[in-house]
Amino acid sequence: MKIIVDAMGGDNAPMSNVKGALDAVRDFGVEVTLVGRGEDILKCLEELGEKDLPAGLEIAHASEVVEMCDNPATAFREKKNSSLTVGLTLLKEGKGDAYVSAGSTGALLSAATLLVKRVRGIRRAAMCPVVPTAKGGALLIDCGATAECTPEYLLQFAFMGSYYAERVLKRPEPRVGLLNIGAEPSKGTDLQRETYVLLKKAGDEGRINFIGNVEAKEAVLGQADVIVTDGYAGNIFLKTMEGAGSFMAGEMKKMFKKNLLTKLAALMVSGGIRSFKKLMDSREVGGTALVGISRPVIKAHGSSDDYAIRNAIRQARDFAASGIIDDIVENIEHMRLPRTVKAGESGEEIRQDS
Amino acid sequence: MKIIVDAMGGDNAPMSNVKGALDAVRDFGVEVTLVGRGEDILKCLEELGEKDLPAGLEIAHASEVVEMCDNPATAFREKKNSSLTVGLTLLKEGKGDAYVSAGSTGALLSAATLLVKRVRGIRRAAMCPVVPTAKGGALLIDCGATAECTPEYLLQFAFMGSYYAERVLKRPEPRVGLLNIGAEPSKGTDLQRETYVLLKKAGDEGRINFIGNVEAKEAVLGQADVIVTDGYAGNIFLKTMEGAGSFMAGEMKKMFKKNLLTKLAALMVSGGIRSFKKLMDSREVGGTALVGISRPVIKAHGSSDDYAIRNAIRQARDFAASGIIDDIVENIEHMRLPRTVKAGESGEEIRQDS
Repeated sequence: MKIIVDAMGGDNAPMSNVKGALDAVRDFGVEVTLVGRGEDILKCLEELGEKDLPAGLEIAHASEVVEMCDNPATAFREKKNSSLTVGLTLLKEGKGDAYVSAGSTGALLSAATLLVKRVRGIRRAAMCPVVPTAKGGALLIDCGATAECTPEYLLQFAFMGSYYAERVLKRPEPRVGLLNIGAEPSKGTDLQRETYVLLKKAGDEGRINFIGNVEAKEAVLGQADVIVTDGYAGNIFLKTMEGAGSFMAGEMKKMFKKNLLTKLAALMVSGGIRSFKKLMDSREVGGTALVGISRPVIKAHGSSDDYAIRNAIRQARDFAASGIIDDIVENIEHMRLPRTVKAGESGEEIRQDS
Repeated sequence: MKIIVDAMGGDNAPMSNVKGALDAVRDFGVEVTLVGRGEDILKCLEELGEKDLPAGLEIAHASEVVEMCDNPATAFREKKNSSLTVGLTLLKEGKGDAYVSAGSTGALLSAATLLVKRVRGIRRAAMCPVVPTAKGGALLIDCGATAECTPEYLLQFAFMGSYYAERVLKRPEPRVGLLNIGAEPSKGTDLQRETYVLLKKAGDEGRINFIGNVEAKEAVLGQADVIVTDGYAGNIFLKTMEGAGSFMAGEMKKMFKKNLLTKLAALMVSGGIRSFKKLMDSREVGGTALVGISRPVIKAHGSSDDYAIRNAIRQARDFAASGIIDDIVENIEHMRLPRTVKAGESGEEIRQDS
């Protein structure tokens, strides 16, 4: 298994990326190709005490770097020698099994879609982070790759999310819920109402384990393994969780820093505080899978340190080994709507977005 | 000032409603009209040690109760003698200054819209709870009254929310932010992009203090005083906050309940834990204002106890005393779009939803 890692993307590149790759090679038995400026990567390795290129690690030189100021839609074309374009070309050509980057999300999404291409029949790619819940986390699909969705996109997200949760997160018969503002099928906007009918049908046919609408509160409390939503609402969900975590961690800190007695109390529950922090720490998962692309791609957080990069590489390995892209290819006919279709029980016509 | 209170709505009615009303009369110097089954209300008063009707409290008899199984859209018409219909009719006729109910949200919304009516020119009513943030809370408008919105609705929400935050929450020049998935004006769906142009114009004209797009994380951290959003996304934001609060409170409880030492630690920070709980406690605010209606209406949480009802009555008093409905009436011309309008800088046509 060989993982291609963008050495230049992210706030702490290239050092954290190089160190994370080294650790992953040692800890997970994978090979890694670091893509980026050869001299910069070698310098990092030297600083890390590696005078020779360690076994399992190789470098693919790429002289350019995609910056935050570059146009995300066109960066990969304008900078053909970037670690983004060179790395994804290696992935496309089969010279690695998955690609990991902590660089610009928009640029990665455009490049993966236009260079590596989506699975045939998949209309839009989705980003699916694992969000912490009261029952060990859930897959949120989509969290911002596709802000505006049609029912067909969400149908595809539901299938892809279900495969991912089953094979990568190891949840048997993952409970697939549609994020909504009430439990009844009539709740939400047209998007949710029309999607509900499609997911219900897929559930009735035994293709996914659809548990109906899930409200945001119940989603956080762990009612579903897969939370299906458009990228706009998914992003609101994800970022509200992040904000609430940060807000409450801050309040807890204040509570413990008040005086000597409360500081002592903090020592007495230090183990619990550590578990609490770990629970909310996005670095534990490492990155966010980009699904719907014909090859595995992982977006690591822009602020990733070496630990996060290491874990993103582990996640890329699991994604590549899971076979979910084959699942998608084999079942694509069940995820597509004909141009006009009668929607089972409701008798309503569901028009397909062109 | 006289507040009309639905004695029969909510999980703990009528007892909590009657007790909350009694407390409010005592604590806030308001008069209260309790609407509901006279005999039930008198029985509650007796149990509370009040043999005669206390000064400041009166009863308006209503023999019927709107139940959760009633159709929200038509309940007020089908049950003309319900505490909902009788209470809102009193409000409409000027026999009270505001109305408070902990009953069905949908039924209240329909009845307020069709019976009391919206302010002339306001297209949709909005529900605006005060959500806890790292900087003392923000007004979220809308949180679910209107799931599907047009840019014009959101423009009106921005104005109404700004008035409410200024006059009821006492925030001078409240910072109005548009909930979005990125800071740039190009982010989000068509709804956010088109709304951005309208809010920018209102800000440039000095009518509101528009601070641009606000991401959900920054909203939780307190970047805005008013968070403008459609009811679908607003509900996702609100319920994710609630879920995260409940999830993290549960984790904290686990942390402190582990063993004798951690239980001792809990005692040592008990003051802090109380403040933390109070911060996340929706009972402190009491209820959610329904704005856009021609008279003040407050929806109290369905699970309200007497403390929450008491605080909802205080909020109703503040809403009624604030004069924001006059603000809306006086400025309605700035919140309306002609059938087709050129949107300032972008030169794009913004069509109005019919």
